[in-house]
Amino acid sequence: MISKLIDRIKKKDAPIVVGLDPMLSYIPKKITDEAVAQHGESLEAAADAILRYNKALVDAFYDLVPAVKPQIAMYEQFGIPGLKAFIETVDYCRQKDLVVIGDIKRGDIGSTSAAYASAHLGKVEVGSTKLTAFDEDFCTVNPYLGSDGVKPFIDACNEYDRGIFVLVKTSNPSSGELQDRVLHDEDSTVYEAVGFKVNEWAKLSMDGTYSNVGAVVGATYPKMGEILRRIMPKSFILVPGYGAQGGTGKDLKPFFNSDGLGAIVNSSRGIIAAYKKDKYANFGEDGFADAARAAVLDMKEDIRVNAFS
Amino acid sequence: MISKLIDRIKKKDAPIVVGLDPMLSYIPKKITDEAVAQHGESLEAAADAILRYNKALVDAFYDLVPAVKPQIAMYEQFGIPGLKAFIETVDYCRQKDLVVIGDIKRGDIGSTSAAYASAHLGKVEVGSTKLTAFDEDFCTVNPYLGSDGVKPFIDACNEYDRGIFVLVKTSNPSSGELQDRVLHDEDSTVYEAVGFKVNEWAKLSMDGTYSNVGAVVGATYPKMGEILRRIMPKSFILVPGYGAQGGTGKDLKPFFNSDGLGAIVNSSRGIIAAYKKDKYANFGEDGFADAARAAVLDMKEDIRVNAFS
Repeated sequence: MISKLIDRIKKKDAPIVVGLDPMLSYIPKKITDEAVAQHGESLEAAADAILRYNKALVDAFYDLVPAVKPQIAMYEQFGIPGLKAFIETVDYCRQKDLVVIGDIKRGDIGSTSAAYASAHLGKVEVGSTKLTAFDEDFCTVNPYLGSDGVKPFIDACNEYDRGIFVLVKTSNPSSGELQDRVLHDEDSTVYEAVGFKVNEWAKLSMDGTYSNVGAVVGATYPKMGEILRRIMPKSFILVPGYGAQGGTGKDLKPFFNSDGLGAIVNSSRGIIAAYKKDKYANFGEDGFADAARAAVLDMKEDIRVNAFS
Repeated sequence: MISKLIDRIKKKDAPIVVGLDPMLSYIPKKITDEAVAQHGESLEAAADAILRYNKALVDAFYDLVPAVKPQIAMYEQFGIPGLKAFIETVDYCRQKDLVVIGDIKRGDIGSTSAAYASAHLGKVEVGSTKLTAFDEDFCTVNPYLGSDGVKPFIDACNEYDRGIFVLVKTSNPSSGELQDRVLHDEDSTVYEAVGFKVNEWAKLSMDGTYSNVGAVVGATYPKMGEILRRIMPKSFILVPGYGAQGGTGKDLKPFFNSDGLGAIVNSSRGIIAAYKKDKYANFGEDGFADAARAAVLDMKEDIRVNAFS
């Protein structure tokens, strides 16, 4: 699956993934009003508004980017209707030939991780019939439980040609509380130790020059990105934290390999709610999708100029 | 919420939680056959079989135990129908006055953790209406992202009188890969460092003599349980790994405080699939629910004799 993602990155000339993390407060009032008029103030209304918003956004930028990353929490909070909207979003993006990275951050003990892997990357068997539940191309995985929490996802990568990004160094302010702790035996940190594990796991699912096993490293920590880039040469890095969380184009440089590949940068709010920023205010609320397209083009240019100079 | 759980533990005289982690292979053929006859080999059939199985099990033991712990992965793998069965299981157990611990192991950056907390412990707002999505009493939380991934759950505990159990030392064989690593600065381990954080977080949501912020520590690691019991005196420990994973009654002793409280022990497969074990084979497949009841009674006795002697 990583070779498919690389192919799409090259075709679109954009190592960019748009995070589809819809908060109701991002969605233009016109859309939420219509949804509430139809469904009342209900979970169904929230889900309907999210799906309309996502489709309009995807229509506006699908030709520019290789991938999208829906954050499942933003759908899960609206219960069953929200998760239906997640599935419909995944399907819609797939129809537009976008690679879909499910940001699900699951991870559990062996048999339970296997169930999550079946749910999101593989298939489940009912009698002799194999069925899909959520069906993303990639998903994110939490490494706290160790190899037997991660390997079922790698098995699914191999069986169904899918990929994962393992959390290594997350973009949030308190990520260092645990991840930056220095280890006794080799003077490395927890995030480096996880990076070394990712590099081991990567070998279990190679797909061309890169592995289906990637890593998440926040744009907000470029120096750690540089270290981790070296530790995990075969792993693509999914880089959150660009834009709204503070990461800039220059911060992205260390996340790429010398082949110009090896990283894909996520922006969520900075794209999908661009119309709320001063810079794109001229698009107005009705122009939210065009504002998102403009923000994608600006992000692409920022990366071209600053990350590859 | 922890005071409610303690009250139920005392009333039932059983520090026991039954894990409702239904694998299709556990469910008697009669039930799955009926579900497939009605729905074909579909996600709906799997969900229907799970729900029938769960209800029969709960009917058989609800008077004996204070709590149940449905593992959401086992439902999520069957997509939307599976998650509907999760919600219906939660509702059914609530009607039986059981405390419900959603084993969801979620955890993300701040605003995203807030969405998960709303989904599972709190409410979401659509317009001026507050709605519930999954509505468990407790849920499990992954600490890898640090305080800003955990605090939104604690806020929900305080606002809605709920609780959480933070993963500290998990029961699986490879949990040590990361959790047992020794830290440089104070010669403690990663799991101890997380234990210290749990003890800090516990102070943010006290409810009587214990906190709504508990911890997960596997029965398979009793010596670590002893250390963690001291580090987190105000936190209840949810103890998985008893029974099928190898933990015994004697292993449970260090998890309890001198007040006889402070721990609740989970058994999943050992109860819900008891009829498949030699010991309970006399119940037969049709007697699966009675076998589960017998296994609960045996577990209760094992803990009384071996953990409190």
